[in-house]
Order: sequence, then structure tokens, then C-alpha cells
Amino acid sequence: MTDAATFHAGLIVIDGLEYSNWSRALFEELRAGGVSAVHATAVYWEDARQTLALLADWNRRFREHGDLIRPAFSAEDIRAAKREGRIAFILGAQNCSPIEQDLGLVEIFRRLGLAVMQLTYNNQSPLGGGCYEAVDSGLTRFGREVLREMNRVGMIADLSHSGEKTTLDAIEHSSRPICISHANPNFFHENIRNKSETVLRALGQSGGMLGFSLYPLHIGGAGRSLEDFTAMVARTADLMGVEHIGIGTDTVRGWPDSVLEWMRSGRWTWSDAKPQWPEWPGWFKSPADFGNLTAALLQRGFQPSDVARIMGDNWLNFFDSGLKAAT
Amino acid sequence: MTDAATFHAGLIVIDGLEYSNWSRALFEELRAGGVSAVHATAVYWEDARQTLALLADWNRRFREHGDLIRPAFSAEDIRAAKREGRIAFILGAQNCSPIEQDLGLVEIFRRLGLAVMQLTYNNQSPLGGGCYEAVDSGLTRFGREVLREMNRVGMIADLSHSGEKTTLDAIEHSSRPICISHANPNFFHENIRNKSETVLRALGQSGGMLGFSLYPLHIGGAGRSLEDFTAMVARTADLMGVEHIGIGTDTVRGWPDSVLEWMRSGRWTWSDAKPQWPEWPGWFKSPADFGNLTAALLQRGFQPSDVARIMGDNWLNFFDSGLKAAT
Repeated sequence: MTDAATFHAGLIVIDGLEYSNWSRALFEELRAGGVSAVHATAVYWEDARQTLALLADWNRRFREHGDLIRPAFSAEDIRAAKREGRIAFILGAQNCSPIEQDLGLVEIFRRLGLAVMQLTYNNQSPLGGGCYEAVDSGLTRFGREVLREMNRVGMIADLSHSGEKTTLDAIEHSSRPICISHANPNFFHENIRNKSETVLRALGQSGGMLGFSLYPLHIGGAGRSLEDFTAMVARTADLMGVEHIGIGTDTVRGWPDSVLEWMRSGRWTWSDAKPQWPEWPGWFKSPADFGNLTAALLQRGFQPSDVARIMGDNWLNFFDSGLKAAT
Repeated sequence: MTDAATFHAGLIVIDGLEYSNWSRALFEELRAGGVSAVHATAVYWEDARQTLALLADWNRRFREHGDLIRPAFSAEDIRAAKREGRIAFILGAQNCSPIEQDLGLVEIFRRLGLAVMQLTYNNQSPLGGGCYEAVDSGLTRFGREVLREMNRVGMIADLSHSGEKTTLDAIEHSSRPICISHANPNFFHENIRNKSETVLRALGQSGGMLGFSLYPLHIGGAGRSLEDFTAMVARTADLMGVEHIGIGTDTVRGWPDSVLEWMRSGRWTWSDAKPQWPEWPGWFKSPADFGNLTAALLQRGFQPSDVARIMGDNWLNFFDSGLKAAT
């Protein structure tokens, strides 16, 4: 192994977001990439009852592949996974659909392992405005109540797909730091899903976390270089503080194109668009390539301790406090 | 205090079944009766989604009255409640409606605190035959799967309202002891809800538990004497073994008559019957009278250690093993 590979193997590597059609092969891919924990999307548009079925599927997955994976309800579970040579899964929802209009379901789903929830997914939700809406409602009346309840029970708010006003409102009203688990700065690539310096500065100042996305649409396509990517990491570290950045690859593996349509459209629109999965950069074809990020960050001149932070320690610290119930 | 009252105050008293319209006054009534733990019905006919709302109501109740009550996920939580001077609530369903047709929901609801589930409530269910059906299907195909899954995750099967064949099938197929949380022997009072010697003997031999009911219809009305009741306890101890019997009062407090109709009819029939709550015996008007049972059992000549067993220790032992997940 190279020095960088040896260094990488010792890290707690955490991916801030993946949504894949999980199989043993994909768990082995994560292991090959030296990944200790993944925040995995369990829900896009599903309601409470459908979410129960999805969580039951996860229970079964944890049993059937117990030698490779385990659930994580806390940061301690991630540390245990690293010791055990397994991969910890923190489950999340990319939308607030599981809680329907019922404040009491926040605690219910937190207990079932849903540790992270986006307040909105692209569209207006009962909680706030999505990043694709023409008008951003900001955090709504119900949104404030839900955020307070999430703060109480230790469910992390994720604003990745929210509008700017809603994101800034959430940072202001949340008693705990929030995250943007998978997005990049707009200065790196202008995209409706990427974030302004205003948002990133407020996120860093409030103790929040940004996970850098590798999704081709968020980096400017498969042709974008790894050197460009690490330069963006360095500039963002200067802007937000190196303690507030991590990786959130937005990896989507093993799905047919129809699932991309489901993610985007759910059942809320009948679109004629037939979206296709994009091509990924050669230096990150899958989570098996996580070591390339570590090597490139070292090469960029980051201190090894800062590389360890970016590759997982920052997420670990964030989960350490964020996943505990309020006292 | 009398000697019996002092003795009672030192016991871990467990009520094997109550279903009340919970309020602070009713929690204080339990405290006045020296009750340490109650298996409380959370569900009669509700489906998965409705059950989530009921469990969320319980979460709120536990917060608002945290000085008096606490949830119990294990027998250890009951011991903790005794130490803290609080009352532990073990939640249960009187029917299998929460899991719908989904085996995965057993583990989901167990994790949410539903620790006991009846396989049937009076009627045929997907799992087995109810005690009011003309034909008892016995344990069904799905019933065997669910029972196996309950055994695995540590959810206790309760056969109180099941038909005789279904009850005997469950005793045979369950890898863990089951319970009949609230019923009496038919030799004491002939009633469709009470149980034959065949069932009681099989229940005792398999390590199961019977909770003696104080519900007027199960004892032969409000006029039945406490002496008759303790004589029945003594005869059942001889039949089943004193380690396999406890109390399951079937207390129902604070509800209008319409709720009795809901319990019996749900939405499965439109009945013209307007059932009314029955009058309770003078020696057990409410759980505040639990001490009367202890005193009468002592007077009957039971050893104090056996009285301690009947009043709670047997349930505690049963919960100790029954609520643990299989290894």
C-alpha cells in the first residue's frame, strides 16, 4: 500500500449521503473503499405507513448481512462498526413525508432509526420551501414545530434540497446545528442544488456541516478534475472552517433510470422527461474509490489531521452531539 | 398500617391488563394501590398508521406525567420504576391489527414499545380463531410466522381472547411461554372468555402465565365475594403451579359506554346493542384496592412468598425472559 492508502485505512471514513439499491456487492464496494459509515436515504416521497415497510426492509438487511453492516443510532455505533470492521448505516429521509402532519411521528421515527430528515425535497413541503420553487416560503409554522421537536429528540435536520430562505431560517431557529449533507458551493459550480456563500458562512458559524457532493450535476460533469475538487474543498475550508466540512457523495448505485424519475417526480407530477443516470468522474466511479479523495487532499497540502476531519471525523463529531436527545 | 398493608407496600405489584382513559387521577389511583407496573392496552382495532398515533400519545403522556409514570421496555424498567416510586407501563395490543399483513411490522412495533400482542380479539384474525367464533381455525399459516417472529424479537403472545384450539396451538408452536393476561378458570365462572382446565394445565406446563381477571363478567358479577375469588386462586395454583399465576384485572376506568361498544365491535359490525359498563365488586372498585387482594391471599393461608409471586413476582419473571430478544 502507498502511504496515503495506509493512512486512509486507519481513518473513520463517513459518507454523508448515499441512496443505492443495496446488495451484498455494494456493501463490499464500501468496504473496499474503507468506508466506516454511510448516511443512507431510506425515504423520498413515502408516507408513514410506507416508511414502516422500508424500515422493516432495513431490519431484514441488517440481519442478512450482519457480518458486513450494522445499524447506527448514535456516533458510538459508528465507532463500534470501525472496531468490528463493519459498515454502520445511519438512516435518513430526504423529505418530511414520513411524519405526514403529525408532530408525534418525529419521535416515533427517530426511535425506529430515522436519524436525519430533510425538511423539504426540491418542492414546497408543509415545513418549508424547496430549492426548485419560484417562491421560497421559508420555514413554516409547522416547520418550526417540527424543527423544535427534531432538536428535542435528536433527529438531525438536513437542508440539502431546500430553498435559501428556508435554509437560513432553519439555521436561525434550530437550537442545534443543522447539515447540508450533499451539495457544493455555487462558486465551484453554479447549480440550483449548490449553495451560496451566505448559506455556507451561516452554516459554518452555527456549527453545521456541509458534505461535498460528487454527483456529476453538482460538480459540473464527469470531466471535472479531482484537482479542481480539492481546490474547492480548500476554498470552502477557508470560508466555513475545516471543522465544518465533510463528504456526502450522493452515490446512487444499482438503480434503473426509472428510480431517478421517482426521486425527482414521486407521484406529484406526470413528467414526459425520461431522465438518465449521469456518468461519474473517473476518479470516483463508486465508493470503492474513497481512497482517491484522501490521497488528493494530502496532495493538495492539507494536514493529515485535517484530512481525517474532512474524511469522517467532522461527521462523527457532528453525529456525536446531534444524535443525542436533548437533556 | 396493618401488617398486610406494610407487606403489600414492599411488593412489586403488577397488573397484567388494564385499559383506561388515562389521566393524572388514574395514575394516582394506581400509586394509591401500590402498583409498580401495568400492562396497558394501547390498541384494539387500530391499523399500523393509527397505532403510530396512539404510541405517540403515549410518548407525550410519559413526558407530561414523568414524575408518576415511565415506559417499560424490559423487566429491568419495572424494577427501576419500583425504586423510583413510579409506575411502569408495558404497552400491548389486544389484537394483531397493528401489523396488518406485514411480518416486518412485528419488530417495528416491538421497538416502539409494543411488548405484548394478542393474536386475536374475539373474532377470527389473520393469525387465529377468536373465542366468539363458531369455528376455531387454530393458528393459521400467517399466525405461525408471526408467532415465530414474536419469539425472535421478544414480543409476548397473549391468548386471552382466542379460541381454545388457537390457544393450544400457540402454546405448542411458541418457542417461548405465552400468557393469558386476563381471564379466569371456567370452573370458577362459566364464561366464553374464561378458560378450560385443559388450557390452564397446558399453559402452566409450558411455563406460561395466567392473570386472574376482576372484570365482573369474568367473576360472575359484582356480588361475587373476595373469599370465593381467593379460593379460586388457590385451586388454580394447585392446577397450574403457583409460579404461573398473577393478576390481570381488566380494569377499564374513565371511559364512556361508547368505548365498550368500540372494544366489542370496532368497525366490523353495526350492532344495535348499547352495552354498558358493569358494576365492579365492592372489594375491587379500582386499582386503589390492590391491597385488598394481598390481604385476602394472606388470610387464605398463602405463604407470604407465594403472595409476592401472585401479586407481581411471577409477572416480573415472565417479563424478564419474555421481553428479551432471542439470542
